[in-house]
Amino acid sequence: MPRMRIDELPTPCAVVDHERLERNAARMGERMTRLGVRLRPHVKTHKCAEIARLSVRGHFGGVTVSTLAEARGLAEAGFDDLTWAVPIALDRIDDALLLGRRVRSFALLVDHPDAARALSAKARGGEQRVPVFLKVDCGYHRAGVDPEDPASVAFARELASLPGLEFRGLLTHAGHAYHATRRDELAAFARAERDVPVRFAERLCAAGVRVDEVSVGSTPTMSVAEDLAGVTEARPGNYLFFDAFQASIGSCDLEDAAFWVVATVIGHARAQNALLVNAGALSLSKDPGATHVDARCGFGRVASANRSRAFPSLRVTALSQEHGQIGSETPIDFDALPIGAKLAIVPNHSCLSAALFDRYHVVRDGRVAEVWRALRGW
Amino acid sequence: MPRMRIDELPTPCAVVDHERLERNAARMGERMTRLGVRLRPHVKTHKCAEIARLSVRGHFGGVTVSTLAEARGLAEAGFDDLTWAVPIALDRIDDALLLGRRVRSFALLVDHPDAARALSAKARGGEQRVPVFLKVDCGYHRAGVDPEDPASVAFARELASLPGLEFRGLLTHAGHAYHATRRDELAAFARAERDVPVRFAERLCAAGVRVDEVSVGSTPTMSVAEDLAGVTEARPGNYLFFDAFQASIGSCDLEDAAFWVVATVIGHARAQNALLVNAGALSLSKDPGATHVDARCGFGRVASANRSRAFPSLRVTALSQEHGQIGSETPIDFDALPIGAKLAIVPNHSCLSAALFDRYHVVRDGRVAEVWRALRGW
Repeated sequence: MPRMRIDELPTPCAVVDHERLERNAARMGERMTRLGVRLRPHVKTHKCAEIARLSVRGHFGGVTVSTLAEARGLAEAGFDDLTWAVPIALDRIDDALLLGRRVRSFALLVDHPDAARALSAKARGGEQRVPVFLKVDCGYHRAGVDPEDPASVAFARELASLPGLEFRGLLTHAGHAYHATRRDELAAFARAERDVPVRFAERLCAAGVRVDEVSVGSTPTMSVAEDLAGVTEARPGNYLFFDAFQASIGSCDLEDAAFWVVATVIGHARAQNALLVNAGALSLSKDPGATHVDARCGFGRVASANRSRAFPSLRVTALSQEHGQIGSETPIDFDALPIGAKLAIVPNHSCLSAALFDRYHVVRDGRVAEVWRALRGW
Repeated sequence: MPRMRIDELPTPCAVVDHERLERNAARMGERMTRLGVRLRPHVKTHKCAEIARLSVRGHFGGVTVSTLAEARGLAEAGFDDLTWAVPIALDRIDDALLLGRRVRSFALLVDHPDAARALSAKARGGEQRVPVFLKVDCGYHRAGVDPEDPASVAFARELASLPGLEFRGLLTHAGHAYHATRRDELAAFARAERDVPVRFAERLCAAGVRVDEVSVGSTPTMSVAEDLAGVTEARPGNYLFFDAFQASIGSCDLEDAAFWVVATVIGHARAQNALLVNAGALSLSKDPGATHVDARCGFGRVASANRSRAFPSLRVTALSQEHGQIGSETPIDFDALPIGAKLAIVPNHSCLSAALFDRYHVVRDGRVAEVWRALRGW
């Protein structure tokens, strides 16, 4: 059976371009090798075993997950070294320990003594000690202990001594790098993401607490970092797909985006100078994008279905559940985009858009070569 | 086996309260009966056969869908009168006609002559004529023909004569009702949603085009409408769940919200006066909510897991993929909300949040009585 072209797929649907994916994986992989850190790619963006496999090729094989569903699916696919990089919820400890017994290493994250003690209480009876990381706040202020607070040293010391646990080290994430407006600003975030945990690790070592691992990473910071001395592992994930947000802040070019949604023109709102497509908030997500860089960024960038031709003047200007409105500040050529025309939309945030699909149509040489499943849920 | 309490469910998860659901269904059902229109509830909010069944009880049994996946799932569950209330995408016509042959009626929507002609070309060979509605713009300006444009009369006449099609009538949706700031403002939107298609139907009849159906509906307008003369069908859907947005604009009280997400406290960011929970953008969606009513509405309202106690000062102030930050303008009582505490979050937009879950935990008398599946995808 001849393989489908992108514009033959029923819409809305999710496309992953294999060539861009390989290129993005190779570029980040080479960067991390050159900087002397292990790459433990985050799978949260794609939630897909095939893509995880591709992303660890040439590396040590460890991955990072955001949900237990991702961890379970990847364990079944043969991955045996995983880190769940969200502070453990007490009600998921039993499930996590169960999975941990099936793989070589399933590391968990804590940033509060109550969680650490609860984890220890459940883990102490087990055959193997449960690997744990201490989450450190490097300025994002979402989660993590304050490295300047003396109580954090005491907590690390307690963590290292709790029965049933194996204290691995420190983990941080410079999520505030997304506030950057240009590539050259990203370097400052990358420095903080390295410096804060490395210095804290030094203080802990001086205080007699052994720190084997310093894990950092976000796609923006890992796209620009030039010095990761003292870091052992990096956990970028979005770089495999990239998206309109990453292009806006300078992590990549828009052309690098390997994931997009294909939609069909279902209406011409000529009075509004707008097209209507059948990709709405449930295809693209309502992520507002890099509004701090471009207040009119809209919800996605538009191109022909196979991305061979960009339409830079078009933006997804409004979203309802299954409707997307595409507008322009210049008059739209409605005749060139008739009812039934298929368009590619590169979303603002590929992590949130991709998670709305249960499968990816993987394109090689302009044809849909494979369909890969995503590990949704929790 | 004893049934679980809400706070025993693994998080994040989606809860539907059966009592509130029944009450919301009954209230809207009685309104529509009193106003003399058939209720064709929209299933897009819940995408669930059990809830659809509950919502048509005492009514004629027709439903509205937003995707072919919903239509297929409901057809399998025994529903045989469905309307797909999104302008048909040309690439889904074959699939739609296939489903249409399996049910008594599967009505489609058009608002452009090219779509109508394409549909006719595919439908003309069939045994049954395909029911179609003409979408009319009543002021939302998302889709639909302009009823004041003479070309719209000509289009309706053509539609009524196209082979293979059965022109049913007019369909409109006052999505702009969501711009209201108070309940009393909703009435004006409700009037437009009735008046515009009813007057257009009269003009069409005068021009010799028979219009059997006038279909209207949104939850805000159907919650307040007092005169639906000339309307035959109403299609509200969100009212079954309601949400924080609907409460903000006056469609309901916050207490009526029948759907919520249960999350666990996974962090105390005392320096930020914030809690961290394990429900992020992939549980709640990034719908910004009714910011025109309350600029600081955040991404959701917070209560104890079973909703017995509201925490009105708490708001979901920031979301990343699997993390939700809950903040407050007053000091948070961290001791009362320890690590591991479970919270209910009523999202801004239940349609977008519910679609992120593949199952609902249905609660009766404080216990999880059933698990219902949702019909996701397209």
